[in-house]
Amino acid sequence: MDLHPVLINGSWRSADAPTGSFSATNPTTGEALEGRYPISSRADIEAALKAAAEAGPIMRALTPETIAAFLESYASKLEENREAIVQAAHAETGLPVEPRLSSVELPRTTNQLRLAARAARERSWTRPTIDTATGIRSLHEPLGGAALVFGPNNFPFAFNAISGGDFAAAIAARCPVIAKVHTSHPTTSRLMAECAHEAAQEHRLPSGAIQVLYRMDHALASEMIASPAVAAVGFTGSRSAGMTLKAAADVLGKPSYLEMSSINPVLLLPGALAERGEALAGELFASCMMGVGQFCTSPGLVLLPGGALGEAFVQSATEKFASGTPGVLLGKGVRDGLEESVQTLIDAGATLLCGGKIGPEPGFRFQPTLLKVSASAFVKNPHALQTEAFGPVSLLVICESESEWHGALSALEGNLTGSLYTATQNNADDALYSQLAPALRVKVGRLLNDKMPTGVAVSPAMNHGGPFPATGHPGFTAVGIPASMSRFAALHCYDNVRAERLPSLLQNKNPTGKTWRLIDGVWTTADVA
Amino acid sequence: MDLHPVLINGSWRSADAPTGSFSATNPTTGEALEGRYPISSRADIEAALKAAAEAGPIMRALTPETIAAFLESYASKLEENREAIVQAAHAETGLPVEPRLSSVELPRTTNQLRLAARAARERSWTRPTIDTATGIRSLHEPLGGAALVFGPNNFPFAFNAISGGDFAAAIAARCPVIAKVHTSHPTTSRLMAECAHEAAQEHRLPSGAIQVLYRMDHALASEMIASPAVAAVGFTGSRSAGMTLKAAADVLGKPSYLEMSSINPVLLLPGALAERGEALAGELFASCMMGVGQFCTSPGLVLLPGGALGEAFVQSATEKFASGTPGVLLGKGVRDGLEESVQTLIDAGATLLCGGKIGPEPGFRFQPTLLKVSASAFVKNPHALQTEAFGPVSLLVICESESEWHGALSALEGNLTGSLYTATQNNADDALYSQLAPALRVKVGRLLNDKMPTGVAVSPAMNHGGPFPATGHPGFTAVGIPASMSRFAALHCYDNVRAERLPSLLQNKNPTGKTWRLIDGVWTTADVA
Repeated sequence: MDLHPVLINGSWRSADAPTGSFSATNPTTGEALEGRYPISSRADIEAALKAAAEAGPIMRALTPETIAAFLESYASKLEENREAIVQAAHAETGLPVEPRLSSVELPRTTNQLRLAARAARERSWTRPTIDTATGIRSLHEPLGGAALVFGPNNFPFAFNAISGGDFAAAIAARCPVIAKVHTSHPTTSRLMAECAHEAAQEHRLPSGAIQVLYRMDHALASEMIASPAVAAVGFTGSRSAGMTLKAAADVLGKPSYLEMSSINPVLLLPGALAERGEALAGELFASCMMGVGQFCTSPGLVLLPGGALGEAFVQSATEKFASGTPGVLLGKGVRDGLEESVQTLIDAGATLLCGGKIGPEPGFRFQPTLLKVSASAFVKNPHALQTEAFGPVSLLVICESESEWHGALSALEGNLTGSLYTATQNNADDALYSQLAPALRVKVGRLLNDKMPTGVAVSPAMNHGGPFPATGHPGFTAVGIPASMSRFAALHCYDNVRAERLPSLLQNKNPTGKTWRLIDGVWTTADVA
Repeated sequence: MDLHPVLINGSWRSADAPTGSFSATNPTTGEALEGRYPISSRADIEAALKAAAEAGPIMRALTPETIAAFLESYASKLEENREAIVQAAHAETGLPVEPRLSSVELPRTTNQLRLAARAARERSWTRPTIDTATGIRSLHEPLGGAALVFGPNNFPFAFNAISGGDFAAAIAARCPVIAKVHTSHPTTSRLMAECAHEAAQEHRLPSGAIQVLYRMDHALASEMIASPAVAAVGFTGSRSAGMTLKAAADVLGKPSYLEMSSINPVLLLPGALAERGEALAGELFASCMMGVGQFCTSPGLVLLPGGALGEAFVQSATEKFASGTPGVLLGKGVRDGLEESVQTLIDAGATLLCGGKIGPEPGFRFQPTLLKVSASAFVKNPHALQTEAFGPVSLLVICESESEWHGALSALEGNLTGSLYTATQNNADDALYSQLAPALRVKVGRLLNDKMPTGVAVSPAMNHGGPFPATGHPGFTAVGIPASMSRFAALHCYDNVRAERLPSLLQNKNPTGKTWRLIDGVWTTADVA
């Protein structure tokens, strides 16, 4: 059977001596989908690395306008091919065409590419800093090598290695991208990559600017990271895979940006429960069901008080979860992993309130699942009880006293988000909020009030990052243009460099008249006086 | 013999069950200095970690004004105690009292503390970002744990773990600091720590805000990094020690900022040599002799053309190096390491032009040493020929053709700095500069023109960082306020958080009227409209 080609060095070509092949599975039916894709051998890897190494200096020398035009053209082509792409993603992920794939995720993805284009043009992401007294000037410039991006299974567009946030940020920062797309949706990725490739040719990006591989042995992935052609790693996926890639990058001092795991604690304070407990149970359920619980920001841990208030919430939430239908998961691996994680939680002392079982075939489904545990049990076994159950699962932690709230917070690992719900009609929760919020603050990247964490706006102020093990560095975000771009840049200082040799952004005249620069401590779009 | 106490949890106290003791050596005489210092056991470590953990939340809640006042008071106390501190440092490091210690390094250090105070007050380092359309606001806030800072041997004030750049940045970012000062200058560090402690008490910093340990087993140092009380590591020193600490931090996803090794390539282009070769030989010699070559930015590698121009430079530089006197090094370890490194360079194919031997006793000295190697030999053994010889040593690399220049640049590892000297009277070097500068750019953190790399101005535009192995991440600088502060901060996002609960810097009203904030894409000191 013919294998689909890989995109290496500017052309779609047959994989060179592939070590195997695979096809995707329709998770709704459990049946294999058409199209076989290669598992790349070292020959493909080496060819891609060589092309990326050659592309690096050319990409750095491109104008931001060229990069921006490419990104916009790519976004348009995705829209032109929306129907085929959405159908492929639906078949490969089981996610609904409407609204999710067609009206939410694809528009979000093209919007992100266009925001990246605008940021590239505007140039302020480079944070040019000029110190006229010392003659020292600096800014952020491309790393000088390629970004190796590993995409996850759960967002076939918005986090795809060939179209998502890491891709947009790295390309807008003028780094070549080697996209290792997720094996669960190769056809979706191929159709998107065809658009990217066409746009790259139109705008004459170097041939190694954008390359696509479908799969390779883990050892070869680590070898790629070690190559001088690769300057940084972007990864979204499981903690175990992330840590393997991180180790390969760390030993060579290469930045790796990993989004690994997060259970996104939600704190329901007593006043909020008293005021709107039933509504909050509905909010929690709706949030847990988004993408069948397969969001990085799905609320997998809920802290709430005991007593009658807590009991009423537990009962209401249990009813809602019990009434939910087992949705289609992204694949067999997700379903089986979920079964295992739920068992881990139960073995660690959690009580199953409802669900907990694999859903009916065909396809891969899991029941909406709710568990509970006392805070006192939680703090005795916090590691196992923070196992990420990637799917429609949440664990309620019952805090019987203020000290139990504190104990549970202290035992928390790093997370992407943390939510606090409090009374809106009175100040019943204010004192407890003041106690808990600082403790939660340092454990999470994004703190929310009265809002579930699912839904990650593409905003310059967004932080889709957080302390380990949510990510590998608490100072960077994977979502939010232009902040996410700085991950793929190095700080470059120019000391006594002759004026005409400075990058245009560091010359006295502001080259765009619009770029924000920090000149002698003042942010301005003006020229150096 | 009585051991000097350690500073733990707000008081100077005897080390608890020290595993040994040590004293410093006067490198000028080779004799042991008065005063014995403890090697801390796990008991000290645990006490310090506990106090740091308690101090973390208190530090985060301090006003920037309190932190600033502490830093300024500390700077003043260092000046009041200048004479004793400078004498101790002279005895422990062999560095001259004038101008180096008294008129250059100590003023630089107090200036840095005062700049950190000003930056803390001004608050713009937090980069508040407000997106009014989405209700999402973010800024950089303290990491939530302590910074564990390891100081180097070569700057007893400006990089000391208790007074240098990492200390100032971490404290100004409101992180507690556990200072592991360098064993070569314990008395200097103790005298400075006494000033810090007094200032901390005056301004009521929490008792675990500033702690000092002199020495511990390597395994215990790695254990400290693993403690939840420690959120980040700052390190300046050797590559091997740095990589050990980095590994301990990486496995837990903790940021570590390491300045490890750099040989700071200097490229002397033909036109520059033709125009002022003799003067450049003098510049190189002077730069290599600064601090007896023990600067992180000492020019240890010089690329220059062959032929008559190159030969004349080699001869002139050799004469200067040969005429230099063997200066006093920081210690026996430095001297012996230097002897070994020079031998490594020779074994790898470099030819000794002059020096190369240990200098006369008493004390620890080494001859100014110049070596040379052909570019063709350099690219065949680039790793060994980039061995950092920490001292007054430089290796000349003779490039016979443009392709040899490129080959040598390609073989370069990451460095803190890279310098390019070109003709000033004509454009003889312009074409070659255009070829070489982009290749050098991505290998270094700071690119210089017509200037030796020694001398690292404390400027907001400075980058004292660079690609691995110079440091562990190319996006951060260890020198330059406020840029260095962001190393000790996390990105904290607030999503839908009620107005009165937002940090003051994210509320609509600009709390200082002077802090720069990015509001809807515009940098401004105004309130949110």
